[in-house]
Amino acid sequence: MSAEAVPVSGAAYSPNAARQIPGDGLTEPLRLAVIVGGARDGTSGPVVAEWFASRARKRADLDVDVLDLAQAWLPDQPHDRAAVPGAVRDLGHWLAAADAFVLVTPEYNHSFPGAMKTAIDWFCDEWQAKPVGFVAYGGSACGLRAVDQLRLVFADLHAVTLADTVGFPDVDNCALHEGHHEAAEALLDRLTWWGEALRVARARQPYDMPCPAKGDPDEH
Amino acid sequence: MSAEAVPVSGAAYSPNAARQIPGDGLTEPLRLAVIVGGARDGTSGPVVAEWFASRARKRADLDVDVLDLAQAWLPDQPHDRAAVPGAVRDLGHWLAAADAFVLVTPEYNHSFPGAMKTAIDWFCDEWQAKPVGFVAYGGSACGLRAVDQLRLVFADLHAVTLADTVGFPDVDNCALHEGHHEAAEALLDRLTWWGEALRVARARQPYDMPCPAKGDPDEH
Amino acid sequence: MSAEAVPVSGAAYSPNAARQIPGDGLTEPLRLAVIVGGARDGTSGPVVAEWFASRARKRADLDVDVLDLAQAWLPDQPHDRAAVPGAVRDLGHWLAAADAFVLVTPEYNHSFPGAMKTAIDWFCDEWQAKPVGFVAYGGSACGLRAVDQLRLVFADLHAVTLADTVGFPDVDNCALHEGHHEAAEALLDRLTWWGEALRVARARQPYDMPCPAKGDPDEH
Amino acid sequence: MSAEAVPVSGAAYSPNAARQIPGDGLTEPLRLAVIVGGARDGTSGPVVAEWFASRARKRADLDVDVLDLAQAWLPDQPHDRAAVPGAVRDLGHWLAAADAFVLVTPEYNHSFPGAMKTAIDWFCDEWQAKPVGFVAYGGSACGLRAVDQLRLVFADLHAVTLADTVGFPDVDNCALHEGHHEAAEALLDRLTWWGEALRVARARQPYDMPCPAKGDPDEH
Repeated sequence: MSAEAVPVSGAAYSPNAARQIPGDGLTEPLRLAVIVGGARDGTSGPVVAEWFASRARKRADLDVDVLDLAQAWLPDQPHDRAAVPGAVRDLGHWLAAADAFVLVTPEYNHSFPGAMKTAIDWFCDEWQAKPVGFVAYGGSACGLRAVDQLRLVFADLHAVTLADTVGFPDVDNCALHEGHHEAAEALLDRLTWWGEALRVARARQPYDMPCPAKGDPDEH
Repeated sequence: MSAEAVPVSGAAYSPNAARQIPGDGLTEPLRLAVIVGGARDGTSGPVVAEWFASRARKRADLDVDVLDLAQAWLPDQPHDRAAVPGAVRDLGHWLAAADAFVLVTPEYNHSFPGAMKTAIDWFCDEWQAKPVGFVAYGGSACGLRAVDQLRLVFADLHAVTLADTVGFPDVDNCALHEGHHEAAEALLDRLTWWGEALRVARARQPYDMPCPAKGDPDEH
Repeated sequence: MSAEAVPVSGAAYSPNAARQIPGDGLTEPLRLAVIVGGARDGTSGPVVAEWFASRARKRADLDVDVLDLAQAWLPDQPHDRAAVPGAVRDLGHWLAAADAFVLVTPEYNHSFPGAMKTAIDWFCDEWQAKPVGFVAYGGSACGLRAVDQLRLVFADLHAVTLADTVGFPDVDNCALHEGHHEAAEALLDRLTWWGEALRVARARQPYDMPCPAKGDPDEH
Repeated sequence: MSAEAVPVSGAAYSPNAARQIPGDGLTEPLRLAVIVGGARDGTSGPVVAEWFASRARKRADLDVDVLDLAQAWLPDQPHDRAAVPGAVRDLGHWLAAADAFVLVTPEYNHSFPGAMKTAIDWFCDEWQAKPVGFVAYGGSACGLRAVDQLRLVFADLHAVTLADTVGFPDVDNCALHEGHHEAAEALLDRLTWWGEALRVARARQPYDMPCPAKGDPDEH
């Protein structure tokens, strides 16, 4: 897996390609998926994600993918898991391969965007027994209220959310200062601890929480 | 305004029709909008909404609309308010005319569906200084964890959410029993108190919280 | 009721005095109770409360009490309402007389202090159908995560919590700047709107949500 | 460590005794601390805790302590960590020795009791990088709203809260049925997975999140 940003849609992201990606072995770098929050009209999310990912890529113990939900075109119908669309299956391979997640989320009206929730709801075991960190922006609380609601969502999905966060009050007017760099490093340190702890534990004993079966509509 | 269920899309729901609807006077029945949560693949939401609306329609002090978000086809792009699509403007007229809301929401993974959040985010002053009640279903907590997250969203939008709720653990297998009927009546009693209190107050002094201007893309 | 800070315990605060306090009439100024959060070892809470109260007292439409929970000495046993201690009854008179509340709360570990929750739990109809605003401090989110948890508590108590808040990241090192003054004025404006709306509504039709009876241990 | 219930106060619980307790080795059974929520006037908490602990004690891979906060007499002043009272230090030894926690909590007004929050706030590294499960009771949501607020508190404390919970709508009138037994077993299975995963990880690399120093008032 190279360190370049990964296009979520298109040929570079086919299931076959995903299956060939290394990274499952315990001596490999941890696979970190940075997920950009899903609003299709803004530019802040990708900018923030790229800033964070560029720091993560400097670490030898992490292998970084950037997954932009705005380019994943997930259908807005999260619960008919018997017939999973191709767009969902494509993204799922990348999530399944990850050992740790960072969600880059704006805050709209005290919470996350609907598109992010739709994306989360399409998946199940892809999240289990893995750590989730947050880089948030917007609102008077630096996006942290969106983070709080996501914490409860991921608790239900058997993931662990990290206390350390990076929050920006206002991305447009905010020059990145040293405090944010330090917060990003603290988050990466913590992600590595939890990511490694849980990768070891999943290899020793698979996490036994059943998810609904995923059907393939093409096979029907 | 008749008591029939209101189709959200189509000619019966044009802006002009909405503008002619009575119900703004203080001696009129309160306008109650029952909003169905937005998942496009299920049938539970409309069934639960119709059950609740049928009880509400028995009251002389309420005038009931049912707005099904699955039929509103709102675009998944909530924050470019400078160019508001027609589907959003159509729904907005009905929300603006309402004195009180009841949201019928499932719970997915500890929270509301993404489509419901997208719908909420498209609007602003339509929600302000009005009461919001909940009829929820799903999960071990009868949908009440989705309700909790919505409470914080609506707090940010200057609405008041009611303590009384109606919650179903599992709609499919659940015969409606007397407890749910009583809970529905309690919720309607409370909605009426708050709806009347705030209608009087808004008439006396408009609620002064500015929202972003809504542009009309057709005028560009 | 004078505009001075009110000692919570002692003779100045007897039930009889409270009963004679004007302010229940609809033409009277609204009674605003500023409640200081309950940690006994710090000084930030009273300082923040006095700063906020001094601004509130400049308004002719508000009559301001400051109630410091650290001086109320409420017992840590909130649910034997059949025998209500004198300290609780004393505080209850002041809360019952209030038309609106502002809670001054620190944030400890993402939430409110235990002592504040104990105080809230001692009361019931004292909170109903009244607005609650927040002045918060502490933590990376300026105390707003403590506020979020309190929003859900007060929703259960049939109160309405206001979107507008005042938040300080770090009281000790924080010179009060103009942004906080503006936030305080916005909160007071909003409190007045909701306080007046709900005072009128309660006078028109009492809020009909029964609370447990309060026994008087002295009468046993 | 025997499997008997542990008196929280008194001689049986001295720091020296705690230090001699085995259980830190990786081949030892996991130490599970069942913490009873802190209301001093009720009996439901201890009854529920004992029911849960009796199931946990049947497992060879767990060593169970029951810690009743009502008997710990923690002072209501959680943040002067420079002078930690003896009651806090005593309890801290038991918490530090635990690999996993189950909190038995009632729900009062949508949240946890104040006394439980006070107890949590007295500690810091005792909670870090350990799993926390919940057995909750009360309210229309079976105590799960108290659990949700505790999830955010423990996220801040670098603990992981488990999705699986046991919830009772009404302890007094509720005969324990098979569903609760199954939920308890599921929670214990999950606690074991997380407890073992994190015990291994902490032994491999200590969790590096500094806490405030604890002073000893006796040494001053």
